[in-house]
Amino acid sequence: MSSSRLLSPFHRYGKSASFRSFHGQKSAVSVGRSVRSLVGKENRNIRAMSSHQPFLNLDNINPNVKVMEYAVRGPLVIRAGEIEKELEKGAKKPFNEVIKANIGDCHAMGQQPITFIRQVLALVSYPKLLDDKNFPEDAKERARTLLEGCRGGSMGSYTDSPGIEVIRKHVAQYIEKRDGIPCDWQNIVIGGGASDCIKNVLKLLICPINAKQPGVMIPIPQYPLYSASLAEFNMAQVGYYLDESKHWGLTVDELERSVSEAKKYCVPRAIVIINPGNPTGQVLTKQNIEQIIKFAYKEKLVILADEVYQHNIYDPNSKFHSFKKVMTEMGEPYNKMELASFMSASKGFMGECGLRGGYAEVVNMQADVKAMYLKAITAMLCSTTLGQACLDVIVNPPREGEPSYQQFVKEKTEVLESLKLRAKMVADTFNSMEGFSCNPVQGAMYAFPQFKLPAKAVEAARAKGQAPDAFYAFELLESTGICVVPGSGFGQQPGTYHFRTTILPQTDKLKDMLNNFSKFHAGFLKKYS
Amino acid sequence: MSSSRLLSPFHRYGKSASFRSFHGQKSAVSVGRSVRSLVGKENRNIRAMSSHQPFLNLDNINPNVKVMEYAVRGPLVIRAGEIEKELEKGAKKPFNEVIKANIGDCHAMGQQPITFIRQVLALVSYPKLLDDKNFPEDAKERARTLLEGCRGGSMGSYTDSPGIEVIRKHVAQYIEKRDGIPCDWQNIVIGGGASDCIKNVLKLLICPINAKQPGVMIPIPQYPLYSASLAEFNMAQVGYYLDESKHWGLTVDELERSVSEAKKYCVPRAIVIINPGNPTGQVLTKQNIEQIIKFAYKEKLVILADEVYQHNIYDPNSKFHSFKKVMTEMGEPYNKMELASFMSASKGFMGECGLRGGYAEVVNMQADVKAMYLKAITAMLCSTTLGQACLDVIVNPPREGEPSYQQFVKEKTEVLESLKLRAKMVADTFNSMEGFSCNPVQGAMYAFPQFKLPAKAVEAARAKGQAPDAFYAFELLESTGICVVPGSGFGQQPGTYHFRTTILPQTDKLKDMLNNFSKFHAGFLKKYS
Repeated sequence: MSSSRLLSPFHRYGKSASFRSFHGQKSAVSVGRSVRSLVGKENRNIRAMSSHQPFLNLDNINPNVKVMEYAVRGPLVIRAGEIEKELEKGAKKPFNEVIKANIGDCHAMGQQPITFIRQVLALVSYPKLLDDKNFPEDAKERARTLLEGCRGGSMGSYTDSPGIEVIRKHVAQYIEKRDGIPCDWQNIVIGGGASDCIKNVLKLLICPINAKQPGVMIPIPQYPLYSASLAEFNMAQVGYYLDESKHWGLTVDELERSVSEAKKYCVPRAIVIINPGNPTGQVLTKQNIEQIIKFAYKEKLVILADEVYQHNIYDPNSKFHSFKKVMTEMGEPYNKMELASFMSASKGFMGECGLRGGYAEVVNMQADVKAMYLKAITAMLCSTTLGQACLDVIVNPPREGEPSYQQFVKEKTEVLESLKLRAKMVADTFNSMEGFSCNPVQGAMYAFPQFKLPAKAVEAARAKGQAPDAFYAFELLESTGICVVPGSGFGQQPGTYHFRTTILPQTDKLKDMLNNFSKFHAGFLKKYS
Repeated sequence: MSSSRLLSPFHRYGKSASFRSFHGQKSAVSVGRSVRSLVGKENRNIRAMSSHQPFLNLDNINPNVKVMEYAVRGPLVIRAGEIEKELEKGAKKPFNEVIKANIGDCHAMGQQPITFIRQVLALVSYPKLLDDKNFPEDAKERARTLLEGCRGGSMGSYTDSPGIEVIRKHVAQYIEKRDGIPCDWQNIVIGGGASDCIKNVLKLLICPINAKQPGVMIPIPQYPLYSASLAEFNMAQVGYYLDESKHWGLTVDELERSVSEAKKYCVPRAIVIINPGNPTGQVLTKQNIEQIIKFAYKEKLVILADEVYQHNIYDPNSKFHSFKKVMTEMGEPYNKMELASFMSASKGFMGECGLRGGYAEVVNMQADVKAMYLKAITAMLCSTTLGQACLDVIVNPPREGEPSYQQFVKEKTEVLESLKLRAKMVADTFNSMEGFSCNPVQGAMYAFPQFKLPAKAVEAARAKGQAPDAFYAFELLESTGICVVPGSGFGQQPGTYHFRTTILPQTDKLKDMLNNFSKFHAGFLKKYS
């Protein structure tokens, strides 16, 4: 029997570590309990009327699912949905619509699709359109290439589990061009969105080491996909704080503090870095990335680089540096480290969230480990072909001289320039509000301002059993229809309050939103002064 | 602390249960080892040249991933891919192409997409086409409804995690019409293919009960998604044999035997039934379904009804009975049982495997448990909008009097009638071959014939370290280019040999394939007589 067989992940860790939550965050377990107490009464009544006892109840289902939290779609967003339904039914509110600034959902906020992407999708969906003179030749050429890459020439066929070969090759060419460094297309694994890709890599790390729980270092604040997935996998969340005073950069001191505390209860296996930052909007400097890589090497951590916002850089003094490029240029031994970098069709200038396209580039993974990684994704057969097709256009856009080039560049530039303006508008407005401070939004699509709350507001929140920032966000929602996500959903320094808002509402709507926000805040301060 | 918290799934079960494999199947662990020995040498050589030790190796990655197997995309299929590449490069073989009869991939085998589905997809992808006179009005009407259901009117927006509301309502109407029984649209959860939906329900059951491993009853032979997912989740696979002598039906005696043996090492939580059967092609009678439901009730098992082939019924004496309908008509207490039924856009007459659309109907789940189930899927945001759109057309096809009705019915009927002919052709041919017996293909898209192997062939297989049916399938592949999946990938009675072949090659190609198969078999018998 191999030693790995003895180390089944069903090993019992110390109970103190099993459901460790972030410092300063409301315990996910207690949230589970409050849901239970709310719904429990209703169930007991139903049971009393029926002779049948349900086979599934909160005590015999997956405990990891119970502790999972996903704030971006949490209680506040559920309430926002209810308010939308109330408005539809004609309810009188101090506002006419809910503004969902809670989620990076570009098209939902009025961003228009890139024409060329949609033309290619229409062509591959309904190839009869290849005879339609209204479609440009370069879109047709892309479509033909994609259809040739599909079995039976149809998007309705399963693809290889890591994706259509020609698209993987185009992705590799895109990365080569971006970094000036060779990229092997067989390291590209396409999935149904970056989230899918990230979970498939994280899953590989579920393995106790010397009977200790595996851990993954994640930023605080973080994107809740990470905390939710680690909870599902019962891996330890090892939070490291981003330094708000340094544009949300990373400091080696904090990484050292975090890892040395974590080693008491788990074995850190990987470090997640989100760059450009979500929810924080920072763009890491090359020097900072080098420090992180050195730290990861010393601690034998696999690097998981969430680089889905690589197109979204607004600050003229910032530049996107991929972890792969920096690591490669550092030379031995760093250029041999295992790295997975994630990219998505949902963000950038395209914002095609609903199409579910994303990829991982997995570098320096040993052949036998990679075989296991690839085997694990085969049971889900393949990711959506049309999501893959969208990715293809993103990495293989119209070239100069092709008929769609001008329009493509125009549309792309307009989106990115407008986001740049909005990034500044959002940060400037928050910085003008009493008790607020907001780092510049150097990249990505979010601001994560800090704000002070009057003592009376904190008391009122406690009386309601809510985190103070959630209390604030609920009042904001009910008064203005603006839906943001409280900082507690992402993690924050104890005693500080933040929220995440997207910069996605179109300019006029954003102006109104920020105006209403300012008024609300002034009123809130007055109410609780 | 709640009791569920004490029952973390990281509890250690007895090691005998942790990696229990099917009777008669090659141990997945030993397969993992052989991969290791193959690739290990190469890695050691690389390591010798470099100072860097990789952080990930076979001893510190997820042991559940190592034991996972997914035969439909296993070593035989990998070899088939290699042969295709060899043919492309001009290698001389006794055949010109590989026939991938290993996977239910309709379009890959030449089935044509349904025009109406693809028209709607083109319209929602590129709404400018709504002004194109060449598109029929009913397709445009469907497209408009779908776009209205999307935030910002774009398929590029995230949807609610369980899917677009209007599509969930159409699915509910489809089920109501199918069963003549009410269906609540809020019980419909759309996912990226039925596989995704199945895994999300299975995941909920990962919970030790009284420190014993949870188990799920699955048929033998089964569709390997189940064994792969249960291995990944470290849940016990509780196999029950289908009765080949009774058209692959279920017998209560066998269910009783299986569950009572299983209770020695696990707590069975659910039973999976695949109807129409994959890989076996049977269609269960209403009486048989009633027996299964009574058994499940007695054993407190959640019913997981894999009903993705509900459109694929060929035997004029067979009829599809949904578990929900049968269970509901049985009255109390059976109509209160927790049931999940799964459906897919990949099979049926549409065969849109690549689009990744599927749904679960989840019946009688308690409100608090359902809240956890729905919460668990939010972290993946939503499934592909275009896969969802495809599902919509399937459950809401052109109606009589609409412009696309005639063509839709014609295309649908042609596919199903042709599959019916091919189902008979395949079973008849195998039954005419020496040592073969094949149940009628009443439904689905596969035949799973049994065949006898000469003693010399069994010896030759053992000498090569292969399962005898895998040995046979490899010889078939190398001699004829026909790729089938050995029975050992699905499970079979010890000492029996089977394979699964699809009935999907188009009629002329299927005739050639069966002809070549017969010749190969005669030659094989001669070679090993």
